[in-house]
Amino acid sequence: MKRLKYPIIVLNLKTYSEAIGEGALRLARIAEKVSRETGVEIAVAPQHTDLARVAEAVSIPVFAQHVDPHKPGSWTGSVLVEAIKDAGAVGSLVNHSEKQLKLSDIAASISRLREAGLIPLLCTNDPTVSAAGAALEPEMLAVEPPELIGTGIPVSRAKPEVVTQSVESVRRVSRAVHILCGAGISTAEDVEAAIKLGTEGVLLASAYVKSKEPEKLLKSMAEAALKG
Amino acid sequence: MKRLKYPIIVLNLKTYSEAIGEGALRLARIAEKVSRETGVEIAVAPQHTDLARVAEAVSIPVFAQHVDPHKPGSWTGSVLVEAIKDAGAVGSLVNHSEKQLKLSDIAASISRLREAGLIPLLCTNDPTVSAAGAALEPEMLAVEPPELIGTGIPVSRAKPEVVTQSVESVRRVSRAVHILCGAGISTAEDVEAAIKLGTEGVLLASAYVKSKEPEKLLKSMAEAALKG
Amino acid sequence: MKRLKYPIIVLNLKTYSEAIGEGALRLARIAEKVSRETGVEIAVAPQHTDLARVAEAVSIPVFAQHVDPHKPGSWTGSVLVEAIKDAGAVGSLVNHSEKQLKLSDIAASISRLREAGLIPLLCTNDPTVSAAGAALEPEMLAVEPPELIGTGIPVSRAKPEVVTQSVESVRRVSRAVHILCGAGISTAEDVEAAIKLGTEGVLLASAYVKSKEPEKLLKSMAEAALKG
Amino acid sequence: MKRLKYPIIVLNLKTYSEAIGEGALRLARIAEKVSRETGVEIAVAPQHTDLARVAEAVSIPVFAQHVDPHKPGSWTGSVLVEAIKDAGAVGSLVNHSEKQLKLSDIAASISRLREAGLIPLLCTNDPTVSAAGAALEPEMLAVEPPELIGTGIPVSRAKPEVVTQSVESVRRVSRAVHILCGAGISTAEDVEAAIKLGTEGVLLASAYVKSKEPEKLLKSMAEAALKG
Repeated sequence: MKRLKYPIIVLNLKTYSEAIGEGALRLARIAEKVSRETGVEIAVAPQHTDLARVAEAVSIPVFAQHVDPHKPGSWTGSVLVEAIKDAGAVGSLVNHSEKQLKLSDIAASISRLREAGLIPLLCTNDPTVSAAGAALEPEMLAVEPPELIGTGIPVSRAKPEVVTQSVESVRRVSRAVHILCGAGISTAEDVEAAIKLGTEGVLLASAYVKSKEPEKLLKSMAEAALKG
Repeated sequence: MKRLKYPIIVLNLKTYSEAIGEGALRLARIAEKVSRETGVEIAVAPQHTDLARVAEAVSIPVFAQHVDPHKPGSWTGSVLVEAIKDAGAVGSLVNHSEKQLKLSDIAASISRLREAGLIPLLCTNDPTVSAAGAALEPEMLAVEPPELIGTGIPVSRAKPEVVTQSVESVRRVSRAVHILCGAGISTAEDVEAAIKLGTEGVLLASAYVKSKEPEKLLKSMAEAALKG
Repeated sequence: MKRLKYPIIVLNLKTYSEAIGEGALRLARIAEKVSRETGVEIAVAPQHTDLARVAEAVSIPVFAQHVDPHKPGSWTGSVLVEAIKDAGAVGSLVNHSEKQLKLSDIAASISRLREAGLIPLLCTNDPTVSAAGAALEPEMLAVEPPELIGTGIPVSRAKPEVVTQSVESVRRVSRAVHILCGAGISTAEDVEAAIKLGTEGVLLASAYVKSKEPEKLLKSMAEAALKG
Repeated sequence: MKRLKYPIIVLNLKTYSEAIGEGALRLARIAEKVSRETGVEIAVAPQHTDLARVAEAVSIPVFAQHVDPHKPGSWTGSVLVEAIKDAGAVGSLVNHSEKQLKLSDIAASISRLREAGLIPLLCTNDPTVSAAGAALEPEMLAVEPPELIGTGIPVSRAKPEVVTQSVESVRRVSRAVHILCGAGISTAEDVEAAIKLGTEGVLLASAYVKSKEPEKLLKSMAEAALKG
């Protein structure tokens, strides 16, 4: 399994039109440049169809946005751990709020990723669910209150207690899980605040993908992560 | 929209271990060779993560195995029409029995594919559902009784009436839809029988992917398709 | 199978707090009274847990809000055709926009309802999907553009063409299906307009359930249905 | 919230044909009789459509087989906490292997049940998932390895380590959760073994519902539970 450094910034490219094909490559290359210049770990999660192209183009860690728990076989249309690994991914988001899974499938996906030497990044929506998620021992866990996703309102400001309570409830169950702040991160200040609340990084999407100056934004975030 | 020739053989690579990465490329290249040699239209449907690599490697039509009906936006983990088009697909399976969709999503997927100039290949499971599917006017419709999928028992032999009734019920609703036979096709004889029952092609998976001699098998199928 | 009279008014009680237990009984009794007084067929669709109580309390037709396609067996938490029939239902909504089903499950639910002598009322969202639905030959089909549900804007006013096109597209596939107008019906005028556009009734929910004067409203609707 | 006594036997009537309407009432009355005679807590989980009738007919605790996490509103076809409470249920199964839920919905269902004074009985499939489930603090948690459900092979015999590991992993996360053994229980010996492995009861279905002598079987199980 690839060893990641913390703090970490994970960039979810979602299915934005700016992040398809060449767009995904461009956003991944900027992330690679900023990571090299600042020394901060930055990972990128492109769409399935761009996974191989992005993983070949950049040297930063590449994550899938979702993975199904199935073993190879008759699962037309599914995305397998074996397939994302072959495409060059080092891990996968699991249970993003836009791609939620049944509990047993979350457990199976995390388990299959680990067996393949890949890194699970589990998404949860509140402190209680974060504690439940921590029991499944993902490498990373990102708390994203659904009501804040895509709003530009950082959870660290709107609901700092969701972050601190999540950190506490996760810690009661597991000391190994790395906790990220996953909603409403749009500025360097948000990153710094997230780190100060006890997380080891952030998961963000629209603020980066839709930024007019993604390199400048990401650089300021990376620097803030080091300060945090 | 790419014009396809009929009869057609569509190869669904599913998520078999033999069809990941290099395996998918190898199977696609064999299909390309047989298509060139026989003049029969052969399409291949690899996994999402292999779509771009396969589409770049071969000149035969490449289909996605599934596509979500969403427009670009916040749909982490989904596979968009825009993304498969960018990756080089000319169409997509829709509603495969292993990836079934809600009725309104089937309609939206077909509609979005067509608007993007891509070809929908709708899968259905019996004559009644085939009639319903025909009303949505996909370019192709493959009937696959779920109880025969992966059995090696051709629907044309086990249940020829499912094929003939599907052809009839589809024709009552639409004259434009091309009907494929989609379950239990494992030999050249099955292909010939399917064509004789009134279809314009076949959709198959395991028989090709897991064949010890895929080129020989596919060539015999292509020749049978011309005879049928 | 119970023979219904047309025009018909179908009252979907949804899961509104006003329509649980005693509330459901009260709303069903008012409907029974108005039906008796006006001679117009009025049916009511309470929640599963109220089905038996409502069916025992009133003599008007009672529908389930949803039914699963499974045969009796190991389906914990599902609602079977056999169960709603035993509870006294004469039919069931199928594929309501708030409980959408896979295409093959819609077909199976309609088929199982008919085999049990119960009446399927299929919900669809636009003219194309209505044509597909008509091929499955439900007794009734309600068109409800999702963007109008619960808005109080009648489809007959906002998008009369959705109704007329649905009527036309359904008629091309089946002459037996009874078409209802299923979104935004909140006044007697809406009912009259829906009938004038070629439908044989309406499916409504909030306007009735949340009305301060449900009896008065329903009576005016029943009278409008006769005029329409 | 109703206080339950332990050990407990929970009878899931599923959607078996023997357990619809009068069948459900008969099976519930036998359970009531055995509970009264042996002093052992026995609960019964009938189908939604039978919930009110069963709860009115017997004085033992009645559970729903499933509950949706929604608040009252526009959720046609869903089963709400408010509705099962009104029907007389004291709690609900949550996430049965035949009705699995997304993680956030499990958390919301448990939370809504508790707020309404009802008892959540969470079903899980292995020790890891049981630990995750325990973090959500349901009153009861039943471990049912899916591969043993309905086989008649008791988990306590086939995989006793699944039970003991689940007990341990749950205990690490919560001391308050009552653990049940939920798969393959078909004899009094199985009940005794389950209790001896550290559980406080059993969840069973087919062995009781399909028994030729359900009263005799249940009585022997209740006596075994006291011995265990």
